[in-house]
Amino acid sequence: SRSINLAVIPGDGIGQEVVAEGLKVLSAVLPQDVKLETKEYDFGAKRYHATGETLTDADLDALKKHDAILLGAIGDPSVPSGVLERGFLLKLRFAFDHHVNLRPSKLLPGVATPLAGEPQIDFVVVREGTEGPYTGNGGTIRKGTEHEVATEVSVNTAFGVERVVRDAFARAQARPRKKLALIHKNNVLTFAGHLWTNVFNKVAEEFPEVTTEYMHVDAATIYLVTQPERFDVIVTDNLFGDIITDLAAAVSGGIGVAASGNINPSGEFPSMFEPVHGSAPDIAGQGKADPTATVLSVALLLRHLGYEAEAARIDEAVSADLSERTGKPARSTSEIGDALAVRVAG
Amino acid sequence: SRSINLAVIPGDGIGQEVVAEGLKVLSAVLPQDVKLETKEYDFGAKRYHATGETLTDADLDALKKHDAILLGAIGDPSVPSGVLERGFLLKLRFAFDHHVNLRPSKLLPGVATPLAGEPQIDFVVVREGTEGPYTGNGGTIRKGTEHEVATEVSVNTAFGVERVVRDAFARAQARPRKKLALIHKNNVLTFAGHLWTNVFNKVAEEFPEVTTEYMHVDAATIYLVTQPERFDVIVTDNLFGDIITDLAAAVSGGIGVAASGNINPSGEFPSMFEPVHGSAPDIAGQGKADPTATVLSVALLLRHLGYEAEAARIDEAVSADLSERTGKPARSTSEIGDALAVRVAG
Ligand SMILES: CC(C)[C@H](C(=O)O)[C@@H](O)C(=O)O
Ligand SMILES: CC(C)[C@H](C(=O)O)[C@@H](O)C(=O)O
Repeated sequence: SRSINLAVIPGDGIGQEVVAEGLKVLSAVLPQDVKLETKEYDFGAKRYHATGETLTDADLDALKKHDAILLGAIGDPSVPSGVLERGFLLKLRFAFDHHVNLRPSKLLPGVATPLAGEPQIDFVVVREGTEGPYTGNGGTIRKGTEHEVATEVSVNTAFGVERVVRDAFARAQARPRKKLALIHKNNVLTFAGHLWTNVFNKVAEEFPEVTTEYMHVDAATIYLVTQPERFDVIVTDNLFGDIITDLAAAVSGGIGVAASGNINPSGEFPSMFEPVHGSAPDIAGQGKADPTATVLSVALLLRHLGYEAEAARIDEAVSADLSERTGKPARSTSEIGDALAVRVAG
Repeated sequence: SRSINLAVIPGDGIGQEVVAEGLKVLSAVLPQDVKLETKEYDFGAKRYHATGETLTDADLDALKKHDAILLGAIGDPSVPSGVLERGFLLKLRFAFDHHVNLRPSKLLPGVATPLAGEPQIDFVVVREGTEGPYTGNGGTIRKGTEHEVATEVSVNTAFGVERVVRDAFARAQARPRKKLALIHKNNVLTFAGHLWTNVFNKVAEEFPEVTTEYMHVDAATIYLVTQPERFDVIVTDNLFGDIITDLAAAVSGGIGVAASGNINPSGEFPSMFEPVHGSAPDIAGQGKADPTATVLSVALLLRHLGYEAEAARIDEAVSADLSERTGKPARSTSEIGDALAVRVAG
């Protein structure tokens, strides 16, 4: 008999509320023979204030035992910027080698976009998750003085770039349009840019059916708002991926519906799935948060664990729910979750 | 009697065509008593192919003697990516200490935007121009092997950050709304982020009338497409500035109308003014390029040299020209230039 042993990290702000709905939909969609076990972890601002801890070695050992991780959101204004980001979110991505950061962008029917006209948006960004300027390499000298110098080092390895580029090619190959764009800034960041471009061109030879293009990151932001239909699969560096996936989320219906996976494709460590939005402390605890991005993250989680049919049922339920929203009164977080649970069970 | 001694660098692709119109409008707008001298320089792909040179010490000595520089565009697919960018554009910015990279974004009446509704867009980005990941620091080991490691080092100094932050505060102070946003990624790039944030907060104390906010670069891309009216003045790092100014240009009417200045505020070296668009080799030589961005760059140049009334006349002429375009047949590069020259002379 099958089973899913899930680590659940509600986190801060609206994290609690949206994760509850994600789990509701997950329970509703799973076939009876699949045993779902969940264990909740209390990471985030509250624990940090109480203990000074963000993520200990013992925590990592515990998390390691799960099949996957569902995260709500981590972050609170009471904690200095960077502490939870570096101490929890990035620490986990690095510790579990989440090198494929997967972020689909699809403009679903009935969803409002800030773009004029009726743009066609359906692409997925494969963002590198363990290298680039996110490594924490760098430092500061003469801190706080007028002679301070602060550096940030972007680290890029052939090993790290090749595995994520290969993953992106495989995803492009599996999609009808079979297109892959590399986004970088190889005319300025020439060291990292050459590495990315060379590896990309080398791996391309193994995927002759995939049409490739290269684009500078600045130009990519233009195309994302003027020709988003141009994109099918994008592969990019950690920082560029961070930036363009927020823009991609904005044009394809907002971060309220943007899901993401922090994936370790080898399965050596559990992968983690989370909505792209943050903890939104301003609306926390009011039942106002839209759980859709979390529910779509649950679909990515199921797909990753091999439950393709269940993932597809969630995607369809979300599409149907979104397409019927126009003109209706706003629903609470749990009302949306209930509606989705009914649809996926049906 | 007054005079302007201008270095003119038409460059590659459409650079020639648009610069010709920029000069046409400049001549038309200047009062009779101002003597305009121009000297053309042949930098770009052609010279690189002929001589292997991009920008020599002798070139820099010659350019140094001018009051300002007008550039069309540099870049051609026949030259490997990075050669002209690092060898000419960035070399010049660094040699002439162009630390204020000024990029206004204003959605003018009659201009199409990819955004829905009727967004109000009128802000200016002050992008740092001589530090960050643009310094060329970094390197590669084991190049071309599966063990290659490539690094890029972002260098940030209190000196470099403070002068550009101070410039941005002064610009915000001089504008009606008096708002300044710092854009960075201080939750991940904590070394550089702390330097930028601390310097920003320190300088803020000297400008109590300016309302400030901080925003992560990924969030900023969302606001640029969902709430662009929120921005008045933005100050940011070299790379973030590169990315968001292309997005800003896209939402405020496209790079066809986006102007920029690479400014040395002390006047120790001449400042350089250029359209944000590139050399667009696909439409070069066909009289199809819109010279508006170059003409607006001429306005920035005039304003920098103290010709405020003439700069304002150009801005008005461009607004009037753009607002009368709808429904009319497309004009050639020189027809647009002629029309603007007539307007500013009038
Ligand atoms: C919170 C932050 C560390 C994170 C990132 O920069 O990766 C977030 O912006 C994201 O995109 O998941
Ligand atoms: C061509 C390139 C070096 C340049 C930059 O990255 O600064 C360009 O994109 C710009 O914005 O002026």
